[in-house]
Amino acid sequence: MIGLSPLLERDSTVPLYKQLYVYIRHQIESGKRQRNEKLPSIRELSTFLLLSKNTIELAYQQLIAEGYVQSRPRSGLFVLALEPVMEMVPMVCKKDSQGGPGQQERPPLIADFQYGDVELERFPLAIWRKCLMDAFRFESRQVLGYGHIQGQKELRAQIARYLQASRGVECSPDRIFLASGTQQAISLLCQLLPQIRVVGMEEPGYDGVRTVLANHRLTIVPIPVEADGLSVEALRRSRADAVYVTPAHQFPLGGVLPVGKRRELLQWAEETGGLVIEDDYDSEFRYQGQPIPALKAMDALDRTIYLGTFSKSFMPAMRLSYMVLPERLAGDFRARLESYSQSVSPLLQQALFLFMKDGHYERHVRKTRKSYQARHRTLLHAIHREMGERVGVIGQKSGLHMLLDVYGRESTELVNRALEHGIRVYAPSRHWMNPEDCPDSYVMLGFGGLEEERISASIGRLKQAWFDDRT
Amino acid sequence: MIGLSPLLERDSTVPLYKQLYVYIRHQIESGKRQRNEKLPSIRELSTFLLLSKNTIELAYQQLIAEGYVQSRPRSGLFVLALEPVMEMVPMVCKKDSQGGPGQQERPPLIADFQYGDVELERFPLAIWRKCLMDAFRFESRQVLGYGHIQGQKELRAQIARYLQASRGVECSPDRIFLASGTQQAISLLCQLLPQIRVVGMEEPGYDGVRTVLANHRLTIVPIPVEADGLSVEALRRSRADAVYVTPAHQFPLGGVLPVGKRRELLQWAEETGGLVIEDDYDSEFRYQGQPIPALKAMDALDRTIYLGTFSKSFMPAMRLSYMVLPERLAGDFRARLESYSQSVSPLLQQALFLFMKDGHYERHVRKTRKSYQARHRTLLHAIHREMGERVGVIGQKSGLHMLLDVYGRESTELVNRALEHGIRVYAPSRHWMNPEDCPDSYVMLGFGGLEEERISASIGRLKQAWFDDRT
Ligand SMILES: Cc1ncc(COP(=O)(O)O)c(C=O)c1O
Ligand SMILES: Cc1ncc(COP(=O)(O)O)c(C=O)c1O
Repeated sequence: MIGLSPLLERDSTVPLYKQLYVYIRHQIESGKRQRNEKLPSIRELSTFLLLSKNTIELAYQQLIAEGYVQSRPRSGLFVLALEPVMEMVPMVCKKDSQGGPGQQERPPLIADFQYGDVELERFPLAIWRKCLMDAFRFESRQVLGYGHIQGQKELRAQIARYLQASRGVECSPDRIFLASGTQQAISLLCQLLPQIRVVGMEEPGYDGVRTVLANHRLTIVPIPVEADGLSVEALRRSRADAVYVTPAHQFPLGGVLPVGKRRELLQWAEETGGLVIEDDYDSEFRYQGQPIPALKAMDALDRTIYLGTFSKSFMPAMRLSYMVLPERLAGDFRARLESYSQSVSPLLQQALFLFMKDGHYERHVRKTRKSYQARHRTLLHAIHREMGERVGVIGQKSGLHMLLDVYGRESTELVNRALEHGIRVYAPSRHWMNPEDCPDSYVMLGFGGLEEERISASIGRLKQAWFDDRT
Repeated sequence: MIGLSPLLERDSTVPLYKQLYVYIRHQIESGKRQRNEKLPSIRELSTFLLLSKNTIELAYQQLIAEGYVQSRPRSGLFVLALEPVMEMVPMVCKKDSQGGPGQQERPPLIADFQYGDVELERFPLAIWRKCLMDAFRFESRQVLGYGHIQGQKELRAQIARYLQASRGVECSPDRIFLASGTQQAISLLCQLLPQIRVVGMEEPGYDGVRTVLANHRLTIVPIPVEADGLSVEALRRSRADAVYVTPAHQFPLGGVLPVGKRRELLQWAEETGGLVIEDDYDSEFRYQGQPIPALKAMDALDRTIYLGTFSKSFMPAMRLSYMVLPERLAGDFRARLESYSQSVSPLLQQALFLFMKDGHYERHVRKTRKSYQARHRTLLHAIHREMGERVGVIGQKSGLHMLLDVYGRESTELVNRALEHGIRVYAPSRHWMNPEDCPDSYVMLGFGGLEEERISASIGRLKQAWFDDRT
């Protein structure tokens, strides 16, 4: 009746829910479970298999997270069609807001190389839920009110410890300020540091930050990113009071700023009294060579504002980022912040504090680093296998995205052809202040949210789309 | 051994946890429980009283929320000293960041009339927790990613329905944009609507908003608030492109903008092409007369941007506010928002959606309206009883604060004397663009976070501080 009889090994090191999940997933993949077929309820399955409801629930959650099954309110769980996971995918997208006209005519989406998606499959949901619940216990005044304007002190202490251990950044918690995302952090800097008027910005550089700077009516001076990183010479010639950089993993080109350039940059700051805004957004994910400490760690003269985020290393839905201010700015900044309120919910802060305190965060980062490494390797292999010399890969040493240079081709055509084959890739030109300067042949692939098999299959389809089916 | 033997009535309409809470609270207040005494654990008490653990926990949570007991990690629950609840109070304060020098010498704080505190005692914690947990179920892709840039659609639909029913505002969910607090909403308006350059601002008016406008380098023109509300004539003479108003409850003076003035204001907008920014922050709490629909509800020509927040009607820790844009602006705004990400966590959005969908939100608003009404009445009575003709009360028809005019006295002295008697009150002058224009004799009392008994006792002490102990 229930039709599920997994062979579960209770002594295995693989948790039971995982075994169950693999079993059901295999049933679906092998076609033993049809599209729209209803799965037994948690209660039924728990009675039938003599497993706890929690185990069943965890298995089901993972299946749902990966788009194998779907929960329909008040009716239960149903098997989804295997390939077209399209309805699910946009939910994790940053650009969720779209879904405009014309989309209906396209074939179902098989894979979306949306940058910003992260791995949710191995996300420790159960632990995170527990932290959230524990956040409530005996803390209601703390977690229901406005909370500390800089962010909860204990959480800031955890962040300080983490920064010290993993990025070599020494700072006391009172120089840390939480914000609800990197853009909000940048906005606060623009609002509260009037000395910043002219900002040097990597060209190309992160559109999300450039837009915020521009919308605060700051003057933006594009500073070219050369083969060996930002042109400090061009920065010197600009009249910039501050410069925004991504030294660990230049966005979007992917390079690491070499030590020599780092020194020059700090020297520029010293000589001109300028500020360096270091966005260390995805430094957790580095696949080749030694981890390089943050630029901030080298900054003996304390001229760097350091930005970090939990969007890549934990999950975007935290909407939690932070800045570390130089000592000389922290006091003023704090004073000016006095009429503001903190924009991150104290409840989430408290839960994150518990999660970090108990070591779950570092464990999670280690685990996801491994899966991203596997995804990254798979992506590179597939590209070499399928496309060989016809493309160049740009910025593949770390992070959750890379650029492809599809020699002699044009990105609009590439994006459209890919879509016709059910694969969404992106034109990166929005990250150039002068979009015409973006080489036409570049496309951007974010791979954080895609599993290896899907990556591998998708690159096969991309090859078809781009090289085989040319009409 | 356990020393707790409450007489609980299982048939009573008063829930068991409440009975238990009242009992323990009384034990503490009557001195039967000493400071630092350890309370039995949830498990012990549950076995002893034959009550569910949940019941015990709820009772304990309420005691903690009210500052009667304290949870110490890994050791248990302890009775707090009754009077000095000082350590607890700042946690709910907006101005948590303070705690500067000199505070140690002061007597323990008995009551903090901090504006921004809300009622947490009757907060439906258990239901809210359940909504949060339910938000996880089978929705991980939706609640772990970035989410929709405007905010979750179903939540916006709930907000639209609520606005229609309670404020007479008709709008489709796609004109609603979520933000992590009113200040972030204002910041987004400044960033994305370049047509706003000169903003008329109520004088006096909400400092939190004024600061944000100023920090976006907009020109602010103070528009006097007269006895019958904003001077639309002064607004006409200004070159403002937009005006920020609090029609339902002028902040901080407390008046309601009369219908005639509302019409004039909309006429101004029509004639000059100006925008009205209506901040409807606490309209849920009105104690005299009929509720008055939002200004937006009268605005046939659609020139009003409506702002709402969950900070007063639900809890500050949501960090969730929203704006309703006029049709003519919504498209542009959405397009410009395209490179931004939503700053409210999708997890909290989903939980709030569930909470609203099941009617808990409206129920909560109704309940808290009643308790605020009681607190408000108590405060007014106590003021009349203790201070009689020596003070005037300003803006007492609605909301969670009022101003006192302590005739012939000076606010710095009043604030300090109050502090010496363990009561914190505030000088409202920061809400004047020209603080010298604030009458010296004004002090501001926020009463949202204080229970009736404490309000009543505190006003007695204030009277002592201000009128009896003069040296
Ligand atoms: C360069 C850069 N910084 C920061 C972020 C993260 O932004 P947030 O903290 O708002 O999620 C991203 C992600 O899109 C990014 O590419
Ligand atoms: C006039 C006014 N608007 C809005 C708010 C609420 O702000 P938020 O939504 O950031 O909590 C307040 C509260 O302090 C207020 O006084």
